Amino acid sequence: MTVTLDNLPKTIDLVRSRDDDASPEGAPVLVILDQTKLPAEVGFLHITDWREVIDAIKALKVRGAPAIGIAGAAAVALASFELQGIDEPSLYLERMEDAAELIRNARPTAVNLAWAVDRAMDIVREEVEAGSASEVIEDALYECVKQLIADDESANRTMGELGATLLPPNATVLTHCNAGSLATAFFGTALGVIYAAAQDPQRGIEMVYADETRPVCQGGRLTVWELSRAGVPVTLICDDMAATVLAHKGVDAIIVGADRIAANGDVANKVGTLGLAILADELDIPFLVAAPTSTIDRDIATGDDIVIEERDASEVLPDPIAGVNVLNPAFDVTPARYVDRIITEVGIFEPSEIGRAL
Amino acid sequence: MTVTLDNLPKTIDLVRSRDDDASPEGAPVLVILDQTKLPAEVGFLHITDWREVIDAIKALKVRGAPAIGIAGAAAVALASFELQGIDEPSLYLERMEDAAELIRNARPTAVNLAWAVDRAMDIVREEVEAGSASEVIEDALYECVKQLIADDESANRTMGELGATLLPPNATVLTHCNAGSLATAFFGTALGVIYAAAQDPQRGIEMVYADETRPVCQGGRLTVWELSRAGVPVTLICDDMAATVLAHKGVDAIIVGADRIAANGDVANKVGTLGLAILADELDIPFLVAAPTSTIDRDIATGDDIVIEERDASEVLPDPIAGVNVLNPAFDVTPARYVDRIITEVGIFEPSEIGRAL
Repeated sequence: MTVTLDNLPKTIDLVRSRDDDASPEGAPVLVILDQTKLPAEVGFLHITDWREVIDAIKALKVRGAPAIGIAGAAAVALASFELQGIDEPSLYLERMEDAAELIRNARPTAVNLAWAVDRAMDIVREEVEAGSASEVIEDALYECVKQLIADDESANRTMGELGATLLPPNATVLTHCNAGSLATAFFGTALGVIYAAAQDPQRGIEMVYADETRPVCQGGRLTVWELSRAGVPVTLICDDMAATVLAHKGVDAIIVGADRIAANGDVANKVGTLGLAILADELDIPFLVAAPTSTIDRDIATGDDIVIEERDASEVLPDPIAGVNVLNPAFDVTPARYVDRIITEVGIFEPSEIGRAL
Repeated sequence: MTVTLDNLPKTIDLVRSRDDDASPEGAPVLVILDQTKLPAEVGFLHITDWREVIDAIKALKVRGAPAIGIAGAAAVALASFELQGIDEPSLYLERMEDAAELIRNARPTAVNLAWAVDRAMDIVREEVEAGSASEVIEDALYECVKQLIADDESANRTMGELGATLLPPNATVLTHCNAGSLATAFFGTALGVIYAAAQDPQRGIEMVYADETRPVCQGGRLTVWELSRAGVPVTLICDDMAATVLAHKGVDAIIVGADRIAANGDVANKVGTLGLAILADELDIPFLVAAPTSTIDRDIATGDDIVIEERDASEVLPDPIAGVNVLNPAFDVTPARYVDRIITEVGIFEPSEIGRAL
């Protein structure tokens, strides 16, 4: 079967409104593939209000650290369009800072969100300082988001090429959650490495084992969907089957994405990653993390300082049972000592050396 | 909150039909708590046809190695009632052997099923040999099943007392799947240890973390239900959250049941057990297995020889996705080196010494 990404839709884009009656012509519109509907329905949301971007991020309609970052910057662009009428620069900036703060806090763990919002707000502050008109600022933000989208895909393709060199020919790999095209502008981080290897006639992918990744099942709904659409061999397993698969199915590597990487190389990623890393260590299977440098947080010394989002119990137990408590941490932290390599768009690093990537 | 098992129904019983129109008065009736309906509904099935017992075992209406064993022996008793009309001893025995073979093979991994069916069939063979009437044989089988039920609860209570000595005061423990009262005649194996500790004023249980145990969610549907009904503090987690809970929540021990224990101490249990055992090893948390001696298979040298049941893909992925394969092994094998202690009704053993339990 031919491996091709032609059948994968773009996850996220920012466009100018043309004939959408609900918004003025020329208004920025964030277009996202609604990931809560997949795999049953491939549906796109068109969002013009930055507050709705926050809701979409919280509700996981757009998810994956790189995609959330782009959505956050896009929300800043939408806010700047809404606030164009404010002539007084200090008031405009104040309103923009307020919006940015709300956007930045939509979800706490992935640093890419704060990183991208800060990047957009740097433009706002510079342009306000320079006395630019609000239309000019809006346009600069629009271009910034378009550039983030282009840069993200480009970084993913570079990571894919680099990461593929770490895999043997006809590799069997295991992945957790969805660090795929759906988690990014396009192509993916961990799955980008898999796509790059699968498309290379000298390499190839024998099988990808995909953990379903409870409770939201990003593996069971998203990863298996995009890999099968691309023609990559994929087998779905429940999270508790990973150990026996790793022990008996000839897995050559585990490869996952990341939501935040501390200065010492500790990795926050979807809950379940820590367990896989410890299993990999015991079973002598390379444990690889693929993440753009925007995921690295130099202000966080170790993973102990990373805020782990606790989500609603109903994701785990939709029908409550009297007397039953529920924990639902969305992420966990894998100490650097369990990580073999971190693949970024500027090179492959040992976790302890990740600071060199910045 | 007071810990009491008064609110827990009996999982399995064999009774004589009284006013059930569907079966002759005096016919043996297997009564099982339908575990596929829990926790939404506490419903009992009344089964008089041994073939329906096989279906109930395959469909997980009755599950848990000890309970399956009792159900298997009960199915032999039901068959003996059906075959009472056959006067020719060799034909009667042949028919009984045929039924027993089908019952024994209802599920492959738990050895308790074969163990209990063999025990019932030993009675049949002895009685046929002795020239007993089929009514006498039926009566002996009925009493055998009643004894198995009594012995199972008694073994569980002994295991509970023994196992509780391995836990510190106010212990926090983690368990996988359901090795509880619902998996046995009453009281449970792994959960029996927890109940015994919780009911002892000198010990107590601070918290039980229960893995939901995909795909059938015996943890999320059964373990949390019976522990909360008994007044034991319980927190439900997804399977992929176990590592971060073990790393950060002060877990004193992991305690699970077993479906088959090889002569060398390798343990087959619900898929996911292997991963927990490796995590426990890395994180220096005692890994305890509680199982009656009927779970030990002296004919199996190591876990490599244990047949692992592969169940239907629809349990993992109810709506198939084109191009997506599914694995669904119901069990995995934990090498003896990852197991700290095996708790049986005749004592606590190191895995390598488990042969001494027989």
